[in-house]
Amino acid sequence: MSSLFNGGISVSLFGESHGKGIGVILDNLPAGIEIDLDKIGEFMARRAPKKDGTSTMRNEKDIPEILSGLYEGKTTGTPLCAVIMNTDQHSKDYGNIAHIARPAHADYTGYLRYNGANDPRGGGHFSGRITAPLVFAGAVCSQILESKGITTGAHIVSIKDVCDERFDPVTVNAEQLNAVKKRSFPALTDDAEARMREIINAAREGLDSVGGIVECAAVGFPAGIGSPMMDGLENVISRLVFAIPAVKGIEFGNGFDCTQLFGSENNDEFVIVDDNIMTRTNNHGGILGGISSGMPIIFRAAFKPTPSISRPQKSVDFKTMTEEELIIKGRHDPCVVARAVPCVESALNIALVSALMTHPNI
Amino acid sequence: MSSLFNGGISVSLFGESHGKGIGVILDNLPAGIEIDLDKIGEFMARRAPKKDGTSTMRNEKDIPEILSGLYEGKTTGTPLCAVIMNTDQHSKDYGNIAHIARPAHADYTGYLRYNGANDPRGGGHFSGRITAPLVFAGAVCSQILESKGITTGAHIVSIKDVCDERFDPVTVNAEQLNAVKKRSFPALTDDAEARMREIINAAREGLDSVGGIVECAAVGFPAGIGSPMMDGLENVISRLVFAIPAVKGIEFGNGFDCTQLFGSENNDEFVIVDDNIMTRTNNHGGILGGISSGMPIIFRAAFKPTPSISRPQKSVDFKTMTEEELIIKGRHDPCVVARAVPCVESALNIALVSALMTHPNI
Amino acid sequence: MSSLFNGGISVSLFGESHGKGIGVILDNLPAGIEIDLDKIGEFMARRAPKKDGTSTMRNEKDIPEILSGLYEGKTTGTPLCAVIMNTDQHSKDYGNIAHIARPAHADYTGYLRYNGANDPRGGGHFSGRITAPLVFAGAVCSQILESKGITTGAHIVSIKDVCDERFDPVTVNAEQLNAVKKRSFPALTDDAEARMREIINAAREGLDSVGGIVECAAVGFPAGIGSPMMDGLENVISRLVFAIPAVKGIEFGNGFDCTQLFGSENNDEFVIVDDNIMTRTNNHGGILGGISSGMPIIFRAAFKPTPSISRPQKSVDFKTMTEEELIIKGRHDPCVVARAVPCVESALNIALVSALMTHPNI
Amino acid sequence: MSSLFNGGISVSLFGESHGKGIGVILDNLPAGIEIDLDKIGEFMARRAPKKDGTSTMRNEKDIPEILSGLYEGKTTGTPLCAVIMNTDQHSKDYGNIAHIARPAHADYTGYLRYNGANDPRGGGHFSGRITAPLVFAGAVCSQILESKGITTGAHIVSIKDVCDERFDPVTVNAEQLNAVKKRSFPALTDDAEARMREIINAAREGLDSVGGIVECAAVGFPAGIGSPMMDGLENVISRLVFAIPAVKGIEFGNGFDCTQLFGSENNDEFVIVDDNIMTRTNNHGGILGGISSGMPIIFRAAFKPTPSISRPQKSVDFKTMTEEELIIKGRHDPCVVARAVPCVESALNIALVSALMTHPNI
Repeated sequence: MSSLFNGGISVSLFGESHGKGIGVILDNLPAGIEIDLDKIGEFMARRAPKKDGTSTMRNEKDIPEILSGLYEGKTTGTPLCAVIMNTDQHSKDYGNIAHIARPAHADYTGYLRYNGANDPRGGGHFSGRITAPLVFAGAVCSQILESKGITTGAHIVSIKDVCDERFDPVTVNAEQLNAVKKRSFPALTDDAEARMREIINAAREGLDSVGGIVECAAVGFPAGIGSPMMDGLENVISRLVFAIPAVKGIEFGNGFDCTQLFGSENNDEFVIVDDNIMTRTNNHGGILGGISSGMPIIFRAAFKPTPSISRPQKSVDFKTMTEEELIIKGRHDPCVVARAVPCVESALNIALVSALMTHPNI
Repeated sequence: MSSLFNGGISVSLFGESHGKGIGVILDNLPAGIEIDLDKIGEFMARRAPKKDGTSTMRNEKDIPEILSGLYEGKTTGTPLCAVIMNTDQHSKDYGNIAHIARPAHADYTGYLRYNGANDPRGGGHFSGRITAPLVFAGAVCSQILESKGITTGAHIVSIKDVCDERFDPVTVNAEQLNAVKKRSFPALTDDAEARMREIINAAREGLDSVGGIVECAAVGFPAGIGSPMMDGLENVISRLVFAIPAVKGIEFGNGFDCTQLFGSENNDEFVIVDDNIMTRTNNHGGILGGISSGMPIIFRAAFKPTPSISRPQKSVDFKTMTEEELIIKGRHDPCVVARAVPCVESALNIALVSALMTHPNI
Repeated sequence: MSSLFNGGISVSLFGESHGKGIGVILDNLPAGIEIDLDKIGEFMARRAPKKDGTSTMRNEKDIPEILSGLYEGKTTGTPLCAVIMNTDQHSKDYGNIAHIARPAHADYTGYLRYNGANDPRGGGHFSGRITAPLVFAGAVCSQILESKGITTGAHIVSIKDVCDERFDPVTVNAEQLNAVKKRSFPALTDDAEARMREIINAAREGLDSVGGIVECAAVGFPAGIGSPMMDGLENVISRLVFAIPAVKGIEFGNGFDCTQLFGSENNDEFVIVDDNIMTRTNNHGGILGGISSGMPIIFRAAFKPTPSISRPQKSVDFKTMTEEELIIKGRHDPCVVARAVPCVESALNIALVSALMTHPNI
Repeated sequence: MSSLFNGGISVSLFGESHGKGIGVILDNLPAGIEIDLDKIGEFMARRAPKKDGTSTMRNEKDIPEILSGLYEGKTTGTPLCAVIMNTDQHSKDYGNIAHIARPAHADYTGYLRYNGANDPRGGGHFSGRITAPLVFAGAVCSQILESKGITTGAHIVSIKDVCDERFDPVTVNAEQLNAVKKRSFPALTDDAEARMREIINAAREGLDSVGGIVECAAVGFPAGIGSPMMDGLENVISRLVFAIPAVKGIEFGNGFDCTQLFGSENNDEFVIVDDNIMTRTNNHGGILGGISSGMPIIFRAAFKPTPSISRPQKSVDFKTMTEEELIIKGRHDPCVVARAVPCVESALNIALVSALMTHPNI
């Protein structure tokens, strides 16, 4: 089902970029978990457009209204629905490109898939805007995880060729994960932030865009949660991460780099620390056989440069079947990576709550 | 559900490495598709252990018996079940390591997940052996795709630091995809094969192991198939690829490399060629917004070095909670990547048939 | 998932009786189907409370606002969300019974299921009010079916021991099905209506309630749609019909009465009429082996008497574990059966569109 | 998916009446539950054909071979597969009727559904024979339930117009449920058995068949398990019960009879007995709002007379489109109801284990 995740919990997303509203239903959440709406606001604010030149000028307040599923401040366990009304729609900006396929966008493929009936304005349901309710869902799940002593967080590893440090996969902790959430730009270090801002600004000034890599981690997640084969944690996390537009790759633990090592280098030795089983290194990224090992869960996702750029591009009008030059007007992020950080966290949060809810009780 | 893929078709896998048998049920296949059992045998033979030193000496014939779903040589559309009886079980080889967690294996996490009740022999249900029925499923789906003019194929891009060429993402064709299937070692070039065999042999002689990267492609897949967000082609392919043990990462199109480009470099211009819409380049890997663009579908998956190595390793007995030295006996692949090639193809084949079966008919 | 139907289409319901709003997301609808909002209003009006004494005085206008999934009057194929804000909430009416289990209601079982965290006001998510978005979904599906030449309809067969005629299972047609929709009370005959109104009024005056049986049919549904075993039309219809509160039974074709016949009496002979295969009789109710036969689809559902009655009842406070006398205040239907008629139709409409969307395209 | 139940556990059935084998995969069973194979044999023997004239002479031993999922006598939690090889196939008996639709069978609808590619021999996948693996699954689930103190059982309430007593919905207990399992004919009383055998024999001698009603109950099932709306216990049980061929109706508690009562008569008062909350009566059948109340779960299912009768019948050859007289040869049950009793129990057992496995753990 296109916009439905149906695992231990279900997440059903809806909305189009320039429609009346967007939102989400979360079903089968654990009951009785206290939800702090201010914290949800803070979480969602990290996805909201920034006024510092690094993102679109679209000025949605994106305040979700919770219509159900919350009673006396706690989850009821029955479906929780949140709606965000679209209030700042400039659909006319998009009028002239309705049938000229924007390169690297889903205009053409969506048109084919829906026989031309999908809402084309601003990408319609394919818009990055639909990550707002995804992030709402992730914010709710974040609080469920916190209530169980689990913390997740993410940061930018790289923008184009500008790299920052990575989390230490063994020692990363809740404090570090929470610290990056308070930064206006989710890099780990000031130095990296400065260099990343620089390259994003250069891209904007060049009427161009850049992409990058987000790293995401969870600590405190209990060992023994997940499943082999089809519903392993990697399967579920990757399915959810690819729901975020612009993701082109995902890797767990040391990821593609594992192919550069011998087995004797890559295998993580088990050790006993304070009567707990751990691994000395964490190349495996906290998941073995689809099941959590108790070590930090770590993965990275690659985001392509924003497809919408202001430079003229060559393309095709798929209705008239003619080649055309395309000028994209409207508001665009020169780089979506900073705003994608809470999206990636949200995908992880949803996956982890879902896995906890499928863990058998008998 | 741990070993169930439930999309446009369902694939339900079962079996343990040293149990009585392994197999698969495929449900909701299109009816009336001719299935050539010899071709299935050839497909599965590509996954079978080789006698050239590159893989385990385990000598399973792995001939699947089809119990249902095939009538007069064609799919019935009702569930197709195939069973492979385990005939070459040496479970005693594994006796001494039952509760010493093999590093990078699921012994410990599986034990926790199933409260110690899972079959530990040879990894049980976590064994790479369960990819045999996955490959059977992929071989059936391969023929369904062929009947629609769609061809898939895969090859080894790299073993450790030994690299081969990649498919050309624009011009890759059925002939090339089929050619690699006939090679005894699935590299694109003889030169790469020689160097890859060399490093695998070196690893074996060093009682060690190596990993690598597999590249997989589909050509002839119609444009407009797939869905946005949760059930996009990337979501479904990645969910299936992570069902293969040892996969640590996946990337589509130019993948992580896209982060090194400006948007103006990464965007694929649409052009009209012979009255068809195509893109001049194919950085997007044939999928936009989760939906096929008509260009070749391309992705790569990273496989870690085989966890089972013959060197002594430090580990923990998770029943007695003592640190132990571990010597893994039994039969092991110094490199699983060659045998993983048809597994990756199978994941893609299942995903593509599933997507075709979800494409609405009204 | 508690309130999620996930078949060929998905229907995700949310809301509580006295929460902010209720609604539904419909995913994977066919794209490009024209939707007439006035017709949806008419359909939903049939479920709305009547002012003729047969139902609750609750005066919700229940006008759904469509937030997504509709563009230029047609379905987009991406998720369609509709929301109904709750505007006429008298939650204080329910204050005193929060923890005294209303007999035949889900107060006690819901409390256990959700560890006391569910919204108890007016039954919360268990309220019959959540059938409003179900009926919205059914109204949308009704128009999708109509666009394919398929008509569904329903009527009251009996209220307590007052019986009306049944549809003729062979000759029932679209005209008859549509005619009953225009009646203010969905009986087939004026005489039955009068007698049914009489017994409902008697129940109301006696501070009591009555139940009844609804019969539902579809004509024009093509033969060959459905699946054997788990996803047969009976399986899917019954799963959806039991989503309507107060349903206690369902039967297809001649239903329980089939047990009174010999096989030679019950079997429906196949005949050829105007070059089409039909059956002379229709005891089977249009479904054989879970798949449509081309004959009218017919089933009946039994609704229990409204649990909420104004008479004092004996019950238990499940928090204090004391036996108490209970007086239910607030607004109640002496009989829900008339308002249930469009709910049953909706369950059928959803099931039929879902079955059409799962019918393979290759 | 046609033959896949995918809830808290998954049950994937396969096989055709005259194919090589039939079977089932059960996924996500709780791990570590001891399974007694002899008890499974006893359970399945209740479904096997009887040699007393009441059922077909087909003489399958139906001994399932368990290929996976059981280790040292206990469930592993990973997929459990059982296969029954078909050994007594007389496919020639069916040769002449391949394309003449047997009345009340799925020959014609199955042909349409699968474009003529389905296996027509003996009904293929639509055969009642596929209930053998369903009963295997039910037998496994029965032992899982027993390990939690839950007992289920069923009996014949009526064959044609010959009626037996019903279970007392309040006092029915494990002893009664188990007692009927030991009878060679699953009636509650000797007297009813004698009269039922009489009418079955009369049907057989008249080259005819009869149907009947099965009543099924569970005791010891904990209160608070299930879900509102779509995944309530009634929804799941009915979905599974309609997977059994020949079922035409299902009702819970007092079922259709509830429509004859006033609300004040039908409502079950809550009372406290030995510090537990119970209801004085049990018209609701142990389920309120889709969730168990702690009272016995009770439902009844109606089975139509066996469609296969030896009398000549009028029908249609759907390939040649000609009306034909049909004589069904082969082996047929004059009444399937006795053999259906363990099938109905199995549907309940699967539903209850599934509901227990979806009950959240956090």
